[in-house]
Amino acid sequence: VAAEAEYRVCLIATGEELTRGASVETNCAYMAKALTAHGCRVVAHLTLGDAQQPLAEAVAHWAGRCEAMVISGGLGPTADDRTRFALSRASGRALVEDAGAVAHLEAFFHARGRTMASTNLVQAQFPEGAEVLPNPVGTARGIAMEMGGCVVFAVPGVPAEMRRMFDGEVLGRILARMPARLHTVVRTVNVFGLPESEADARLEGLIDETASPAVGLTVNGSIIRVSVSATGADEGRLRGEVDRVAAEVRSRLGSHVFGEDETTLAESVVGLLEERGATVAVAESCTGGLVGHMLTNVPGVSRFFLEGVVAYSNRAKVELLGVPSGLIAAHGAVSAEVAEAMASGARARAGATLGVSTTGIAGPGGGTETKPVGLVYVAVADERGARSRRLELWGGREAIKDRAAKYAIDELRRALLDGADGGAQTGNEVTDGS
Amino acid sequence: VAAEAEYRVCLIATGEELTRGASVETNCAYMAKALTAHGCRVVAHLTLGDAQQPLAEAVAHWAGRCEAMVISGGLGPTADDRTRFALSRASGRALVEDAGAVAHLEAFFHARGRTMASTNLVQAQFPEGAEVLPNPVGTARGIAMEMGGCVVFAVPGVPAEMRRMFDGEVLGRILARMPARLHTVVRTVNVFGLPESEADARLEGLIDETASPAVGLTVNGSIIRVSVSATGADEGRLRGEVDRVAAEVRSRLGSHVFGEDETTLAESVVGLLEERGATVAVAESCTGGLVGHMLTNVPGVSRFFLEGVVAYSNRAKVELLGVPSGLIAAHGAVSAEVAEAMASGARARAGATLGVSTTGIAGPGGGTETKPVGLVYVAVADERGARSRRLELWGGREAIKDRAAKYAIDELRRALLDGADGGAQTGNEVTDGS
Repeated sequence: VAAEAEYRVCLIATGEELTRGASVETNCAYMAKALTAHGCRVVAHLTLGDAQQPLAEAVAHWAGRCEAMVISGGLGPTADDRTRFALSRASGRALVEDAGAVAHLEAFFHARGRTMASTNLVQAQFPEGAEVLPNPVGTARGIAMEMGGCVVFAVPGVPAEMRRMFDGEVLGRILARMPARLHTVVRTVNVFGLPESEADARLEGLIDETASPAVGLTVNGSIIRVSVSATGADEGRLRGEVDRVAAEVRSRLGSHVFGEDETTLAESVVGLLEERGATVAVAESCTGGLVGHMLTNVPGVSRFFLEGVVAYSNRAKVELLGVPSGLIAAHGAVSAEVAEAMASGARARAGATLGVSTTGIAGPGGGTETKPVGLVYVAVADERGARSRRLELWGGREAIKDRAAKYAIDELRRALLDGADGGAQTGNEVTDGS
Repeated sequence: VAAEAEYRVCLIATGEELTRGASVETNCAYMAKALTAHGCRVVAHLTLGDAQQPLAEAVAHWAGRCEAMVISGGLGPTADDRTRFALSRASGRALVEDAGAVAHLEAFFHARGRTMASTNLVQAQFPEGAEVLPNPVGTARGIAMEMGGCVVFAVPGVPAEMRRMFDGEVLGRILARMPARLHTVVRTVNVFGLPESEADARLEGLIDETASPAVGLTVNGSIIRVSVSATGADEGRLRGEVDRVAAEVRSRLGSHVFGEDETTLAESVVGLLEERGATVAVAESCTGGLVGHMLTNVPGVSRFFLEGVVAYSNRAKVELLGVPSGLIAAHGAVSAEVAEAMASGARARAGATLGVSTTGIAGPGGGTETKPVGLVYVAVADERGARSRRLELWGGREAIKDRAAKYAIDELRRALLDGADGGAQTGNEVTDGS
């Protein structure tokens, strides 16, 4: 995609609570997602404090580097709301009172039986020549104005008000200005159980800054998402190209691919349970309920998920899952044998098609020389019996729990996919924890 | 604080998934919070894509406007990781291979029984004269370098690795360079079970923009955090002022306060279990394992958490928890009676001091006229018997699960605090879902 075909957008958020890190800024991500889906190229998100001058400088700087800009926040009535002043300074246009906005403010307060403080009148001031954007849910009306080839919008910072004004007033104005109606087609291939460097090696030649479709790779919570995207005018052609590259990505990553786009690992498993008419019961030790939590995040799972047991104590493993106490004595609670007995026990107790289990040492305490923190066994039981997998995970307690739960769910997926001809094999897996 | 005493920091995050809005950027907020607490002034967060040149330009631009900069992301082994190249370009210093980093990489892969791909060697390249920052949990080592009066750091983008390197290597180096040791004292009072508007009303007069200590209120996942902060040179005096205002905040918010600073609701409950020498067993229906997951995120909980049952099916409620099937037939699985029987059953089965339960309709399906989506009962059982609480929650499936689990844990907290003289009362609670 040539640079001249790009419609570049810069997003700015203001507020000291954001720069200080007291709140996480989410308005930019919300707007960016919608803009990207419509073929815009979001080049930067910038978060600034409440001061006027840095905001005015940033507006002037980025107005020269993009075709559209949206600023959220700083339109309120208080002394630290300075977006309108910054826009006035950056554009050299004086603020003038808008009669319609004064009437809107008076009506707003009147409807709520309140008297308007005179400080609210600042919300009726707009840079000369700017368009005033309506706000049906608050006093902060928005701003749209030209600044040397860039269209600049200011919207409220309160997420609910921002969303309403962005969706209703801003997005359409931006899209109407795009010279060619560009489209961006994105498909994401989701992968589990592969180190990032290994995924990268398998995708050699596809990840290239200049190529279209572009292939990118991100990792979050051990899930690798490989995105394939292309921008251009001909949506049908783009879709064909993206589909072709996505198919290549899937083929190179093989059985580690569990789904596309927004699909979670648990959703892919619940989809397979539904296809197969299968049910599952869960036996958890070190994951403490997280496998059940992940599976029950999927709407409609109650037809397939029968029950779970969090058998933290050995007594619970024996009484609730029927694990022979001699097995625990002989191999320890963290062992392939106990993991397999837990999975089989959960399956038998519930009368489920499949049982899945976890047992391990999540840390930070409890590790030994032979059984260190991060050692986890996951097992799956079905009509063929039980198979387990040994994992050496790293990270903190929550990261180990998270990965162990995902490996357990992934073993369930593999068992459902493999049917009668294989399934998970007992074996050692050394993960990179990425 | 005079401008000349300010120590300004700029934070940059890189990644196309961030500019596109596919993920919300949180690294900057994490770092900003710590930097602000130590008296730094964070002037901007900037999020850029994967391209090298805009990053190099931004680094050069902001290095002239602040005393320190931290860049997260773009240190991986893949072709779209370009932070080291951008730093080389911005500083005019060539990349050179660091022998120690090569050895670190080789050892890293060797320890995991894997062969290093040659693409990983890029992670051993650093701008000439830069300091290499260790990464005990991954292959991406960090960078520290001078750029015209500004110290520039690059850290991994994976949040867990970023946090470890920022906390262990970056923050201390920044603080050591600050000329005037300003202090910011922050205390946070954590609150659950109160609507935001009610908390705001109770804090009337304390939340005043011009006051010091400043009082601010943020809400995340139904937890309200009230921060009390003050900045200045005399740390002892600041601490006294902050303590005084924090005590006032606690007194106004009463029993809804469950802890301070980073304490989670589950940690406060585990602390009370330890103090009382008590144990707990969990019976979950609609929360699907989340109560167990939250409690088992606390290190050392295995001494107090005996077992959990995720009784999604009625059969599991009867067989695993001893809920009389006639009770389910008479009142339905989502009822105060069944919630109380589940809590008592879990307590009795495990021989625990306390039992806690959830049953409800998480949606999106399954709601009826009389039992709508969001109706949840939580119950606690102890030696005095069982008491339940009716909740009307809103939001999506995951939000309802999250709130229901927190209410269950909060009831546990109240039961532990109240001892023999009260505890949770049966009653209706209509929450605002904030």
